[in-house]
Amino acid sequence: MKPSIPKGTRDFGPQEMARRNYIFNTIRQVYSLYGFQQIETPAMENLSTLMGKYGEEGDKLLFKLLNSGDFRQGITADDWTGDTIGHLTSRLSEKGLRYDLTVPFARYVVQHREELQLPFRRYQIQPVWRADRPQKGRYREFYQCDADVVGSNSLLNEVELMQIVDTVFTRLGVRVCIKVNNRKILSGIAEVIGQADKIVDITVAIDKLDKIGLDAVNEELRQDGLPEEAVEKLQPIIKLSGTSAEKIAVMREVLAGSEVGQKGVDEVEYVLNTLSGQNALKNPIELDLTLARGLNYYTGCIFEVKALDVEIGSITGGGRYDDLTGIFGMPGLSGVGISFGADRIYDVLNQLELYPEEVLTSTQLLFVNFGERETQYLLPVIGRCREAGIRCEIYPDAVKMKKQMQYANAKGVPFVAIAGETEIGEGRVTLKNMLTGEQQQLTPEELVEAVK
Amino acid sequence: MKPSIPKGTRDFGPQEMARRNYIFNTIRQVYSLYGFQQIETPAMENLSTLMGKYGEEGDKLLFKLLNSGDFRQGITADDWTGDTIGHLTSRLSEKGLRYDLTVPFARYVVQHREELQLPFRRYQIQPVWRADRPQKGRYREFYQCDADVVGSNSLLNEVELMQIVDTVFTRLGVRVCIKVNNRKILSGIAEVIGQADKIVDITVAIDKLDKIGLDAVNEELRQDGLPEEAVEKLQPIIKLSGTSAEKIAVMREVLAGSEVGQKGVDEVEYVLNTLSGQNALKNPIELDLTLARGLNYYTGCIFEVKALDVEIGSITGGGRYDDLTGIFGMPGLSGVGISFGADRIYDVLNQLELYPEEVLTSTQLLFVNFGERETQYLLPVIGRCREAGIRCEIYPDAVKMKKQMQYANAKGVPFVAIAGETEIGEGRVTLKNMLTGEQQQLTPEELVEAVK
Repeated sequence: MKPSIPKGTRDFGPQEMARRNYIFNTIRQVYSLYGFQQIETPAMENLSTLMGKYGEEGDKLLFKLLNSGDFRQGITADDWTGDTIGHLTSRLSEKGLRYDLTVPFARYVVQHREELQLPFRRYQIQPVWRADRPQKGRYREFYQCDADVVGSNSLLNEVELMQIVDTVFTRLGVRVCIKVNNRKILSGIAEVIGQADKIVDITVAIDKLDKIGLDAVNEELRQDGLPEEAVEKLQPIIKLSGTSAEKIAVMREVLAGSEVGQKGVDEVEYVLNTLSGQNALKNPIELDLTLARGLNYYTGCIFEVKALDVEIGSITGGGRYDDLTGIFGMPGLSGVGISFGADRIYDVLNQLELYPEEVLTSTQLLFVNFGERETQYLLPVIGRCREAGIRCEIYPDAVKMKKQMQYANAKGVPFVAIAGETEIGEGRVTLKNMLTGEQQQLTPEELVEAVK
Repeated sequence: MKPSIPKGTRDFGPQEMARRNYIFNTIRQVYSLYGFQQIETPAMENLSTLMGKYGEEGDKLLFKLLNSGDFRQGITADDWTGDTIGHLTSRLSEKGLRYDLTVPFARYVVQHREELQLPFRRYQIQPVWRADRPQKGRYREFYQCDADVVGSNSLLNEVELMQIVDTVFTRLGVRVCIKVNNRKILSGIAEVIGQADKIVDITVAIDKLDKIGLDAVNEELRQDGLPEEAVEKLQPIIKLSGTSAEKIAVMREVLAGSEVGQKGVDEVEYVLNTLSGQNALKNPIELDLTLARGLNYYTGCIFEVKALDVEIGSITGGGRYDDLTGIFGMPGLSGVGISFGADRIYDVLNQLELYPEEVLTSTQLLFVNFGERETQYLLPVIGRCREAGIRCEIYPDAVKMKKQMQYANAKGVPFVAIAGETEIGEGRVTLKNMLTGEQQQLTPEELVEAVK
């Protein structure tokens, strides 16, 4: 009976870890370049912190920890059979695993409000857990890589987050398109067609344009209860095309009667204008009015990133929310953030084979073990290589040469060093390049130079 | 009502993270230098993997996850009141959080045996969870930093692990003493005094020598049922002092009649001799016969590291175990490993204030925000600094100068840059060194040079 791991979870072996670390380190470095500071919060939070923050469905998907000790205490047989599952759960469990990084961050900000200097730019790269039904590409444990600024309403934050996205994907070599929109524009649209209360229905329908086409979108709008006149008024907006500047010009006109709509247009315009000329991004950024993510919490800018060369959903997203910490009794703190989808980015890099060679090399140099005498000769040489920063090892057992070479090959070691009678006599080692097969006899100093 | 986190868990803020990352990165880099490769395993394991591996007490300290969905199914009111807690637990919960990194690693090796190239050198740095009673210095969530070699009996592995320990603490600037012993020597001692079955009692008593003194140790040995003659025979061993070489010479004589004891002496001698001369460590390493950690699983070398300048328990430890994976049906695989105690090392570095200045600096340069025009002027300059690798940010809002300087101070930013009317006219910025107060007017290129 082979041991296994829970469904929806994964082991990451050396090769996968090397790839994932490359992605995480790239994101981490760029976050740091922009003055974001790392924090970590515990895997487990009090259920009172987590419950009710992700909707009814989310509550069910929380992993809950069975109370330690005698969890039965105080729960009678009648309670067991008669109580609701929800109530029983709250009696059996006080703690749950974090479901995302946003709620723990909000909790963190409120709990540490006195120590924090606002605006606070934090990033956080940690796993989250969801008791979702496992399926292809969806896991019960996965990493999130979030950065948020809280305590500042400035649109400069939006500008910098877009620069971060652009820099990360440029460094990773992934061509992307950044799509931006603004919740206020969507509100404005709903307002000017006289359907302010239908904003969610409208955006959900428009969001499907690419998939189902214009006629089907209009049909859905009618089924949502929009009068023909409103559907009519929406047409120029749905069909809107052209450059971002052209779209902005049209929307400024269409939304002339909506204060909130105008504000949304101003915001998008500021972000796009600032990111032009000398500050132009390396990847395209465009206004996309059909972008409608996170409508129940985003209140301003919304953004999403798509890979251009791989068919996959959004690989990064974010937006501004006006009240991050209100749920924990600290209202009025605005925030804006992004979240890189590490697992999807990993899939994209795998498909496009974008990993630099050196990222995937662990051991650079393997010393072959011929026996005790040779080992004693090699140990100071190995020490010297390590001091010079070369990742190296000596095969620990004096087994057959073939087996040691197999080990080097399987581990992808690019250089192998050998020292037998002759080399020891001359104070040298033979260095073999595993790719070219080329061999050289070198002094320890030359060896260090050759491998570096 | 301020939100809080579960007892025994911690939030790590930016400053703590910077310090912890410094420690973790140091360990990680040294592990890599020695050819160890990183893996990660899921936070949750099947309870069948975890239960019974840590003793009865350990089973109780496992955090268990309440089954999702209707956990009540199949458990009647009679079961609820009449069943044992242990049995009820196994019906309510299938998964638990990992308790250490060793059992998940053993599970990993067996599960992936076909893909693995032995000997396998893996390291793993991840949190573990224990439902221990929280107390000073003991947490319910804490990181372990383990490295193990499996599939090789060679003592070279022991040698390299000692070199790793020595290099890590040298790089961290912590003076330590490495103590080594060997389970086979302890077995040999028990054998030659005719008390092979009392090995644990004997080592537990001897282990207390420093704390309670010789008389009390002897008294404890008698109470453990050792005959006077055996206690007598133990005296030269307990009182053994001198250099490691002297101790080895005495032990070779004392253990003349024990084959296993001789083997233990040989092993210790090999490790200590190899780590001398050209391969001498920077920190002292010594044979300590009273070292008796992990006797129920270690079978060969045992080692432990003590900080010399701080009163704290062992900060790193490890040893060889002959049967890591037997519990999962793959017997005969020998391993040897070490585990750095990250939390204690963190305490040591804090007490001795051993963090390099640059580790604690997040943002290197803050640009003061005077308003829209100045910001537009600064954005390309900021871009240039980031391209040069300088961690910098612009204060996002054009608030009072004093507030922006407070922010810089609180965040420990060493440089602040300002651009007003004059600077913009001359294509320069004013750079202020926050430590010395010194100011300079610089071009963007000069700015980059000055901060780097």
